[in-house]
Amino acid sequence: MNVALITIGDEVLIGQIINGNAAWIANAVTRIGCHVVEHCTVADETTQLIQTLDRLRTSCDVLLLTGGLGPTHDDITKPVLAEYFSDVLVESEEWMTHLHEWMRSRGREVTRRNAGQALVPATARMLTNPIGTAPGILFDRDDVIVVAMPGVPDEMKGIMTDHVLPLLEEKLLQQGAPHTQYHTMLTTGIAESSLADLIGEPSQFLGTSTLAFLPNYQGVRLRIGVTGSTQHERDRERMRIASILRERAGRFVYGHDEQTLSQVVGLHLKERNHTVSVAESCTGGLLGAALTDVPGSSVWFYGGVLTYTNEAKVRELGVSPVDLATVGAVSEEVALQMAKGVREKFGTTYGIGITGVAGPDGGSPDKPVGTVWISVVGPTDHSTIKHSFGNNRRINRERSVGAALGMLWKMVR
Amino acid sequence: MNVALITIGDEVLIGQIINGNAAWIANAVTRIGCHVVEHCTVADETTQLIQTLDRLRTSCDVLLLTGGLGPTHDDITKPVLAEYFSDVLVESEEWMTHLHEWMRSRGREVTRRNAGQALVPATARMLTNPIGTAPGILFDRDDVIVVAMPGVPDEMKGIMTDHVLPLLEEKLLQQGAPHTQYHTMLTTGIAESSLADLIGEPSQFLGTSTLAFLPNYQGVRLRIGVTGSTQHERDRERMRIASILRERAGRFVYGHDEQTLSQVVGLHLKERNHTVSVAESCTGGLLGAALTDVPGSSVWFYGGVLTYTNEAKVRELGVSPVDLATVGAVSEEVALQMAKGVREKFGTTYGIGITGVAGPDGGSPDKPVGTVWISVVGPTDHSTIKHSFGNNRRINRERSVGAALGMLWKMVR
Repeated sequence: MNVALITIGDEVLIGQIINGNAAWIANAVTRIGCHVVEHCTVADETTQLIQTLDRLRTSCDVLLLTGGLGPTHDDITKPVLAEYFSDVLVESEEWMTHLHEWMRSRGREVTRRNAGQALVPATARMLTNPIGTAPGILFDRDDVIVVAMPGVPDEMKGIMTDHVLPLLEEKLLQQGAPHTQYHTMLTTGIAESSLADLIGEPSQFLGTSTLAFLPNYQGVRLRIGVTGSTQHERDRERMRIASILRERAGRFVYGHDEQTLSQVVGLHLKERNHTVSVAESCTGGLLGAALTDVPGSSVWFYGGVLTYTNEAKVRELGVSPVDLATVGAVSEEVALQMAKGVREKFGTTYGIGITGVAGPDGGSPDKPVGTVWISVVGPTDHSTIKHSFGNNRRINRERSVGAALGMLWKMVR
Repeated sequence: MNVALITIGDEVLIGQIINGNAAWIANAVTRIGCHVVEHCTVADETTQLIQTLDRLRTSCDVLLLTGGLGPTHDDITKPVLAEYFSDVLVESEEWMTHLHEWMRSRGREVTRRNAGQALVPATARMLTNPIGTAPGILFDRDDVIVVAMPGVPDEMKGIMTDHVLPLLEEKLLQQGAPHTQYHTMLTTGIAESSLADLIGEPSQFLGTSTLAFLPNYQGVRLRIGVTGSTQHERDRERMRIASILRERAGRFVYGHDEQTLSQVVGLHLKERNHTVSVAESCTGGLLGAALTDVPGSSVWFYGGVLTYTNEAKVRELGVSPVDLATVGAVSEEVALQMAKGVREKFGTTYGIGITGVAGPDGGSPDKPVGTVWISVVGPTDHSTIKHSFGNNRRINRERSVGAALGMLWKMVR
C-alpha cells in the first residue's frame, strides 16, 4: 500500500517550523506495514496543490494531507478538495453541534469565523477531532483514499490514531499482500566504514531484505527492512538478518530501535544498583545533560562537576597541579584524575572525566582542536582514551559525549 | 529565484529522523530573498530521483539535494547525478589529498571504501566540506543549478554557508529584481500574546513589510520581512520597522538574527570582566552546556556543580539540610542557596541555581511536574523566580535553561 504525505503551508515551506508531522505520520504508517513513497511540502496555493494531487494519485493508494484546515483566509485545503472532487461544501449539523459543545465547554461562543469549520464537502466522510474545531476529511474515490487533517500536531495525531491508522490496518489485512517492516540495531564504538567491512557484502545475505547504515554522534544504526505477507514470515526474516549481524558485529550492538545510549547505560546501572558521576571540562555539562535526559535517572546519576578552569580541577577534583603544569589540562593524566576525583567525591560506582580542546581556538601542534581525552573509572577497571575529532566545536562536544557514553556502556554492560 | 529542496533517504521517508535540514535550508535561502516552491523527500532509489529532478527542473532555478553521499551501498546520489547529466565519475586528486589529511589527523587510514568518496563527476564543481569526507557537488546546466550535499546537518550547513548561499546571493544581485529579506529581533521574558499587545496592530505600521511572531524556548523572535529593489531601500525599511518595534518592546530585545542568549550574556560578561558559575539539579548540565556552547566561554564561565541528590546539595553547595527536610529540594530557599553556594565555591561574579520537577514522575499536588525554581545571585542583587512549565520532561528542561539565561541577561546587561 503506497502512501504519500502532502504538507500544506508556507510556514513549513519557508522553514519557519520543522515538519515534525511528516516524520510522525511516516513512522506510524511504516510501522503498520505501509510503504511511504514521498513527502511533499507545498504552498497554500490552489494550482500547486491540485497538480500535486494529480501527480501523486497516479502512483499511490493513500494521500495524507496536513495543514490548511484552519478558520483564516489562507486555509485553502477544504475548498480545493471540494472543487477537485466536484463536490460542494454543506453545513454539517453533526459538526455544528460538536462545535457548539466544544466552545461551550471552554466558556466561549461559536463565532461566524468558527462556524465555517462546520462546512464540509457533501460526499466526504468526516473524521472527528476530539481536541480541535476542524474535523479530518476523507475522500475515497477510484481506489485512492485522500485524507485531509489539521496541521496542529496533537489534532493530527488524534485523527490518525482514532481513524486513519485503523482504516489502513484493515485495508492491509484485506489485501494480505507482502509488506515491509523496519527494525534498527544500534552500534557504538565503530566507524561506519569499519562496520561495513565487518558485516561484509550485504547482497550475499539480504535476499529480499534491505540494510541501511545510519551514523550519528552516538554510533552507527543498522536499519533492517524485511518484507513478507504475514507477521510470522517477517519476524522469521528479521531474526535471520539480526542473527547474522549480531554474529559479525554483535559486540558493538548496544540496543535497538528508539533506545539511546544513556537509556541503555541507565538500565544496566539500575539493574546492578550501580551509580555514576561526571567531571566535565570541554563538554561543559553536555554529558550530565545526556544522562539526565532519561526519566528516573536520579536513581543512578548522582551528579558531577563542571571544571572549566585549572583551579577548579585542582580544588574540586584533586587534579595534580604539577601534571597541569607539565603535561597540561588536555592529557591522559588529567582525564584519569578527573574521573577518579569525581567518583570519590560523589561516592559513585563509576566516574567519568572529559578534557579536551573543543575549538575553534586553543589548539596547538601537539594538541590540535578536536583532541579529547576521556576516562572512565570503575571499581575494578579503568579505561582512558584519546580521541581526535574535527574542527567543529559543537560536533566535538557531541562526539565526546557519544564516546564517553560508549566507553561507559562497554564497562557496565 | 525559485528553489526546490530534495531530501534523499529512506530514514527521512519512513520517519526515522525528522527533516530538520529542509527547514534550515528553506529558512536560509528565504532569508537572502529566494522563493522556496517545494520540499520533496524521496527514497534512495534511482528512478524516483530522476523523475523528481525532471519534474522540478522545469519550474525551478535551483535544486538543493541532501543525503545519499555516504560511503555505503545505499548512497546513490553521486552515480545517479553523474548518469543524469551524462557525466562520468573520476578520482579527484585534490579530494583524495583532503581525504588522506582528514584521516591522518584522526589517526586513521584511507580504506578502499573511503577512497570512493574521492570519486566525483568530471564536469561538476566540487564544494569543499571542511568537516566530513563527502564534498558537495554542483552542476550548472541550462540555467538550472543542482547542488548535492551530505545529509549530516553540520556538513550540509558548512557547505551551504561557505559555498551555496554566497553563490545564490551573487545571482540575486545580478538579477536586481525586488526581493524580500528577513531579519529577526530576539526577545526574552515576555509571552507571545503580551508581546503582540505591546506592539499593537501590525497593519498600521507594516506597509509592504511583514511581521511574524516565532516563539521558542529562549523567548519570542520577531521576524521582519522587507521588500525592495535595492539594498539601500530594504535597509531603510528594515530600520523603520525595527525602530517602531524597539520603541514599543525594546526592553525585552536581547539580540538579533542568529545570536543566542548565551552569546549575548557572554558578551556582556566579557566586557565587564565578570564571570558566572552554575548549580544545576533538574537540568543536569544543560545550562552549563548552553553557556559553554559559545566559543571562548572559558573567559567568563568558570564551572559548576550538578547536584542530583540532596546529599550533594548539602555537601557541595552548603544547602541547609533543615530547609531540604521542611520546604523541600524544589523551593525558593534551596534555589537561592544553590546559587549563592556555587557563586562562592567558584568565586564568580554571578551564580545560578536551578531546582525543579522535570517529570514525568516526582510531582505532587503543591509541586506538580513542571515546577522549577531558578535563582540568579550577583554582587549587589539577586532574583529568585518560580516557573510553572508543562508535563514534558524535555521541554521543561529546555525552558528552564531559557528562563535562567533570560534572568541572567536581565542582570548583566
